[in-house]
Amino acid sequence: MGGEECFRVTARSPAGQARTGVLRTAHGEVPTPAFMPVGTLGAVKLLEPADLEALGVHMILSNAYHLYLRPGAEIVARAGGLHSFMGWRRAILTDSGGFQVFSLPSFRRITAEGVEFRSHLDGSLHFWTAEKVMEVQRKLGADVVVPLDVCLPYPADRDQAREAAGLTGDWLRRSLVAAATAVDGKEQLMFGIIQGGMWADLRQACAREVAELPVDGFAVGGLSVGEPRSLTWEMVAAVKEVLPPDRPVYLMGVGAPADLVEAVRLGVDMMDSVYPTRMGRHGVAFTSAGRLQVKNAGWAGDDRPLEEGCDCPTCARYSRAYIRHLFAAGEALGGRLVSVHNVRFLTRLAEELRRRIPAGEEAGISFPNEKEV
Amino acid sequence: MGGEECFRVTARSPAGQARTGVLRTAHGEVPTPAFMPVGTLGAVKLLEPADLEALGVHMILSNAYHLYLRPGAEIVARAGGLHSFMGWRRAILTDSGGFQVFSLPSFRRITAEGVEFRSHLDGSLHFWTAEKVMEVQRKLGADVVVPLDVCLPYPADRDQAREAAGLTGDWLRRSLVAAATAVDGKEQLMFGIIQGGMWADLRQACAREVAELPVDGFAVGGLSVGEPRSLTWEMVAAVKEVLPPDRPVYLMGVGAPADLVEAVRLGVDMMDSVYPTRMGRHGVAFTSAGRLQVKNAGWAGDDRPLEEGCDCPTCARYSRAYIRHLFAAGEALGGRLVSVHNVRFLTRLAEELRRRIPAGEEAGISFPNEKEV
Repeated sequence: MGGEECFRVTARSPAGQARTGVLRTAHGEVPTPAFMPVGTLGAVKLLEPADLEALGVHMILSNAYHLYLRPGAEIVARAGGLHSFMGWRRAILTDSGGFQVFSLPSFRRITAEGVEFRSHLDGSLHFWTAEKVMEVQRKLGADVVVPLDVCLPYPADRDQAREAAGLTGDWLRRSLVAAATAVDGKEQLMFGIIQGGMWADLRQACAREVAELPVDGFAVGGLSVGEPRSLTWEMVAAVKEVLPPDRPVYLMGVGAPADLVEAVRLGVDMMDSVYPTRMGRHGVAFTSAGRLQVKNAGWAGDDRPLEEGCDCPTCARYSRAYIRHLFAAGEALGGRLVSVHNVRFLTRLAEELRRRIPAGEEAGISFPNEKEV
Repeated sequence: MGGEECFRVTARSPAGQARTGVLRTAHGEVPTPAFMPVGTLGAVKLLEPADLEALGVHMILSNAYHLYLRPGAEIVARAGGLHSFMGWRRAILTDSGGFQVFSLPSFRRITAEGVEFRSHLDGSLHFWTAEKVMEVQRKLGADVVVPLDVCLPYPADRDQAREAAGLTGDWLRRSLVAAATAVDGKEQLMFGIIQGGMWADLRQACAREVAELPVDGFAVGGLSVGEPRSLTWEMVAAVKEVLPPDRPVYLMGVGAPADLVEAVRLGVDMMDSVYPTRMGRHGVAFTSAGRLQVKNAGWAGDDRPLEEGCDCPTCARYSRAYIRHLFAAGEALGGRLVSVHNVRFLTRLAEELRRRIPAGEEAGISFPNEKEV
């Protein structure tokens, strides 16, 4: 754990909850608000670590669950950790695997001690405890780690939610002990996960409990799991209300442009999502006017870039007509080009928010998430 | 047609037939010997035009047949030609489509007039004449075009080979008339295709015939179709023997490292092949010690680059262990990284040959094509 000094708020919006800051990690500073692309298996799909650097990404998310199964934490550790294994020099946050264990359609059995599950790859049986997950993430050498947590399906009932939050809290305490007694000298920040389903009072109770612990930041989990967006924001606002103002807040799994803006307005500092790259591979490009379906026949003769004025390498060089052709022809290069654009769209959006927040002008940005151009 | 002055021999090896030169095109000079990656559909698989520039590629090959079917020559023409359509600023050679029409497993019927065939995509019926193929390639705006030709299966009998060479010659003459009467002011070079199956005398007769025509260069077609390599080189040597020494010679469809070296020794100036990118997607990396099977479990903990001393972006940053992991995890990024390496391996090899030839030192390079490291 790096203590409170790992995060510094550099400006607070005079118009609301939004703020800018800097997260200090063992692999450089991450200016916030920050968007983190997801490299589940140590690779953001179709993008090289070198590309991500050029796109203004300061931190990525990777998955302890997936890397533990493949290639295995030992192999990554022997390579000197995930940074050196994948050739990425900037910061990494690893997700604990709770979400994966609870969302993949394979067997799991949960006890106070931990969770037993079957690998989605080969059906092999594994038992994860809070301590085991810390050990895996230490081997991976992430800059920010999160403890094992219990993720609920949506909808869930209130008793389930309370139980899940309780167990998540227990496991966090055990994780902190495990981290405090690790002796390898690695500097890792730990964020506590806040659960509580879709009940504001459970969320707040959980947040208060976690805030009393020496965590370096807060990860708001179990949202964006199918609930209406208004409920997502209600939960985020409830949690923010009771969290201390000096530690970073990370909203897990959110990454559509309009959602990023809304979360930042509520005071969220960090977000991650597979959305820009998944959409990119499916030929959906983010633009400030809405979503552009690259495959549409209407673009076949259109020599404009995906978005005029965009500074990404795709828009600098390739037309809608070309990218549409790549998709029509089944060339995976098309997915790469749109992924490049979408990731840059979000890092550019975060940059724009960081510029506007000190003057309270972040409300001037809005995106029609679902509209098609 | 650009006339003989489009090609200048800059050095001849004192030790053999090899030579260096410069091919002048409407999109820049191409130093020879040159290796051309193949972008069948206006895209070299998984590589951006921007990548190819950085890898030292001066000219690529694309396919008139495929682009005619998808997205259609009209769409490419309206975008200002293939260069502007795909964002590639350097030279392009388009294959006529003869090879595709004769090798794809769909219906075709050949007459003196041309060839009727069914699209491999939707079964639609098309009729290509020599003139039509010139018109398509004009619309695409390639820097070097080749006429429609008749490609034989291997083995073929001598009468078939003679007939195919005869028809190819007729079509070449008609193509030259069509090109000479085009009035759009585009500067396109035309290479005549030399056929003749696996008979040295037929090849030489065809070469002599083509050499009498005002073509800008010679494309040796119908080789590397399954015959033993010794026969390939016998045919190349036979053709070279009778071709005038002042025009470029392009060997179609050859691109394994050892083959590139051997062809250059025989006096070939240009080559193309899907081999480096196809091998790349299958996890086979070229190295000076032989082929490296990236997927092998033995590389799982190996932090060395694909090839030590290689200056490609892949070797500069990513280890065998990481790339092996990408393949094991089904990440297409792995195929991109090895394709980058393989293309650079061949352009670097061509650069090395260009450096060595003036001193007659090209024989100092050898590659164990089939050996595994």
